[in-house]
Amino acid sequence: MAGKKIRVTIWNEYRHEKEEEPSGESYPEGIHGCIRNFLSECDDLEIRTATLDEPDCGIPDEVLDNTDVLMWWGHVAHNKVPDDRVEYIRNRVYNGGMGFIACHSAHHSKPFRALVGTTGNLSWGDNCHEIIWNLKPSHPIAAGIPDHVDLGLEEMYGEPFYIPQPDDLIFGCWYDSGHIFRGGCTFTRGLGKIFYFQPGHEECRSFYNPYVQQILKNGVHWVAPNDFGYKNPCEAPYVKPVV
Amino acid sequence: MAGKKIRVTIWNEYRHEKEEEPSGESYPEGIHGCIRNFLSECDDLEIRTATLDEPDCGIPDEVLDNTDVLMWWGHVAHNKVPDDRVEYIRNRVYNGGMGFIACHSAHHSKPFRALVGTTGNLSWGDNCHEIIWNLKPSHPIAAGIPDHVDLGLEEMYGEPFYIPQPDDLIFGCWYDSGHIFRGGCTFTRGLGKIFYFQPGHEECRSFYNPYVQQILKNGVHWVAPNDFGYKNPCEAPYVKPVV
Amino acid sequence: MAGKKIRVTIWNEYRHEKEEEPSGESYPEGIHGCIRNFLSECDDLEIRTATLDEPDCGIPDEVLDNTDVLMWWGHVAHNKVPDDRVEYIRNRVYNGGMGFIACHSAHHSKPFRALVGTTGNLSWGDNCHEIIWNLKPSHPIAAGIPDHVDLGLEEMYGEPFYIPQPDDLIFGCWYDSGHIFRGGCTFTRGLGKIFYFQPGHEECRSFYNPYVQQILKNGVHWVAPNDFGYKNPCEAPYVKPVV
Amino acid sequence: MAGKKIRVTIWNEYRHEKEEEPSGESYPEGIHGCIRNFLSECDDLEIRTATLDEPDCGIPDEVLDNTDVLMWWGHVAHNKVPDDRVEYIRNRVYNGGMGFIACHSAHHSKPFRALVGTTGNLSWGDNCHEIIWNLKPSHPIAAGIPDHVDLGLEEMYGEPFYIPQPDDLIFGCWYDSGHIFRGGCTFTRGLGKIFYFQPGHEECRSFYNPYVQQILKNGVHWVAPNDFGYKNPCEAPYVKPVV
Repeated sequence: MAGKKIRVTIWNEYRHEKEEEPSGESYPEGIHGCIRNFLSECDDLEIRTATLDEPDCGIPDEVLDNTDVLMWWGHVAHNKVPDDRVEYIRNRVYNGGMGFIACHSAHHSKPFRALVGTTGNLSWGDNCHEIIWNLKPSHPIAAGIPDHVDLGLEEMYGEPFYIPQPDDLIFGCWYDSGHIFRGGCTFTRGLGKIFYFQPGHEECRSFYNPYVQQILKNGVHWVAPNDFGYKNPCEAPYVKPVV
Repeated sequence: MAGKKIRVTIWNEYRHEKEEEPSGESYPEGIHGCIRNFLSECDDLEIRTATLDEPDCGIPDEVLDNTDVLMWWGHVAHNKVPDDRVEYIRNRVYNGGMGFIACHSAHHSKPFRALVGTTGNLSWGDNCHEIIWNLKPSHPIAAGIPDHVDLGLEEMYGEPFYIPQPDDLIFGCWYDSGHIFRGGCTFTRGLGKIFYFQPGHEECRSFYNPYVQQILKNGVHWVAPNDFGYKNPCEAPYVKPVV
Repeated sequence: MAGKKIRVTIWNEYRHEKEEEPSGESYPEGIHGCIRNFLSECDDLEIRTATLDEPDCGIPDEVLDNTDVLMWWGHVAHNKVPDDRVEYIRNRVYNGGMGFIACHSAHHSKPFRALVGTTGNLSWGDNCHEIIWNLKPSHPIAAGIPDHVDLGLEEMYGEPFYIPQPDDLIFGCWYDSGHIFRGGCTFTRGLGKIFYFQPGHEECRSFYNPYVQQILKNGVHWVAPNDFGYKNPCEAPYVKPVV
Repeated sequence: MAGKKIRVTIWNEYRHEKEEEPSGESYPEGIHGCIRNFLSECDDLEIRTATLDEPDCGIPDEVLDNTDVLMWWGHVAHNKVPDDRVEYIRNRVYNGGMGFIACHSAHHSKPFRALVGTTGNLSWGDNCHEIIWNLKPSHPIAAGIPDHVDLGLEEMYGEPFYIPQPDDLIFGCWYDSGHIFRGGCTFTRGLGKIFYFQPGHEECRSFYNPYVQQILKNGVHWVAPNDFGYKNPCEAPYVKPVV
């Protein structure tokens, strides 16, 4: 893939930042704007953004067809995303190998639920002190990350977290509320790779944390599709003996 | 759970056996009848059967509410199973811990797809010689099973098999057509456990094989729910600090 | 296996309790005595204990040959266990399917290191407030355990924990020191099953906690060997085609 | 790591090729020579070779200290590799993140056994027809590989294969002898990544197969170490609360 850029689409619900005080202050260009800014430091990425209130939620077929990695941030308007967009995303991941990164409250987004196959339910609580522990330093997503990252104030997302057993559990979260969380984990579905990462409440400033930025940069590169040796066939291909 | 019986419901589409020659001969009481017969050798099981053409497909709410383990065989009529039954099954597995065993072509059944979250697509071919290899002898589902089982004639189901990475890969299938298959594997979803097992084409006689019977008996006991220490809470419970 | 009892050997280093104040007070019969007492509530277990200062460390060949599950507690005298005992244990697990439960500081014991193949290194700190979270309620070892167990004071064992990726991550530990730990996890090696569980510092009273007792009872039943369908063959058997 | 080359050391026992007919014909420059030739097509690799009969087996400390990825081929002389080399390799993988690729009969090599913690035992049989199936196309090691590769004649290595449950099962092998094999799988140990790959009998010509070459090129890049954010600490660091 030398020389070929990874085409990233950052999708943001973009409601909080326009309407509420602390979010607007934290992310004056929107969360997608903040993410775009730091991802732009990577030369090999070609980045666009998309938001809920654009036509087709900003992700018509032609955009998704030309997206290698889709990042997703959503919270209060999960239900506004039309089912046909969800199904299209799922097919792109499954059969096209598009990568998917679910940020923070995207655990309850339609695409994440459809991809991993569970509800994504979890316990939540008030903002509190969060520390992220690096459980798998050999994983490319953990490259350059120390044994722990003191994140400061974040929204508490705790166990039980209703996800399938992840392929890789890379980061574990500690909260001073007494909770823990499998906050950085990966899944594979068909040809595609998925990464869920906990930080990113609209009222907090985690997307400005240099380690969070590094992890998301690593994540984009890790979920990006392989140069596949084959494409998914039809639903139930009849095959002849190969010997 | 000492003394408490495991309540098993064997669900069968039950179309082939009534209508087609070789299936009717192989399974004169239906596939569900054959499975019921050998499962009945276990004293700790309380068994009922259900078929597609009964009211509510034989699985109204009160049946599912009183089922610990649901076995599923379907093939030509996957689409006839109403979505509300699928959703009820999914909830029972997810939030109630009901076990689910998908036999053979149930890889494409609505409940299996809903539970594991993928299409279940695979390659298929004509009946051929199948050998099952025991890849995880320490797993309870492999108890009493030798290093390999020569199954004789079975329908060929081959890779690529579009499932999420299984928790346990217990059995691998070899076919003289040159194919292999991850034919015995487990998944966990919420409180529930799932087992997929390849053998069981309606024209073949795999359900009479003593090792296949042993594996399915083991499977029923393994997917049966724990005596849980807690029930799933609501979708997104707000929790206070525990310290 | 109905009617057949599981033969458990509880091995304890048994140095702290004889020599030091708080340990002696917490465990007047030794840690092994305390574990024996609560395991004795299970009718299907046949229990013996063994300690370091007995001949052959209390585990000569004939004892290990007649042990289905070996529990291990050690701390200051790991090096006193002779290598030939370690190798014998490893073979029993690997080729005979003997289960192994490593309690607390057994993460650094010779048998645990030999079995999982890593150093078992971890970070440790002073006793502090520990809460155990139930990450896989569907696992038999978690049967009857609520979503979290408030353990009170325990020794802090934190990440990074140098273990291979576990088969199952069942419990995660939270400490008020800001650390987390993969404190309840399983591995399979050959025919045998292994369970590591964090609580059990000699100065604390975790082995009196009813949930810790329940988890260890569950653990003994889970690591107990299957009734295997085959035994491990020689090192590199030459095999003829099976078709 | 842009601009930094991956330093690869190809280690070969190099006995068969000097002494035996078919091996010498297949690999006139030795197996290591053949591997070096095709790996040299990658611009970002800096390659050296090492063989058993060189001083320190060709891998003194200073060579290993400057190796990012160690490939290993051995067969008849596993025992000639000194234990101190094995321990040094293990430390480099574990604490330094050096990648390790075990080719073919390296399943029984001392370093592989030490790294994964099991015997690596398997069943073996005469050369026969082998087909490799791609079970995880989304994995970087499978990039560019079709759904199956018809390898022709290879030595039969079959299940049961005594390895721990792999992190990733990427390739499965089919043999016309009726056997199957988990022939392409990965493990993580400490900071290091490990890849085992089945093909490569000294009498066959698998290392000339373009897909085998592609898989090994992919493997070298995948096991290469991250730019770690931290180094392994001492054995049991005492840590203070981080909050």
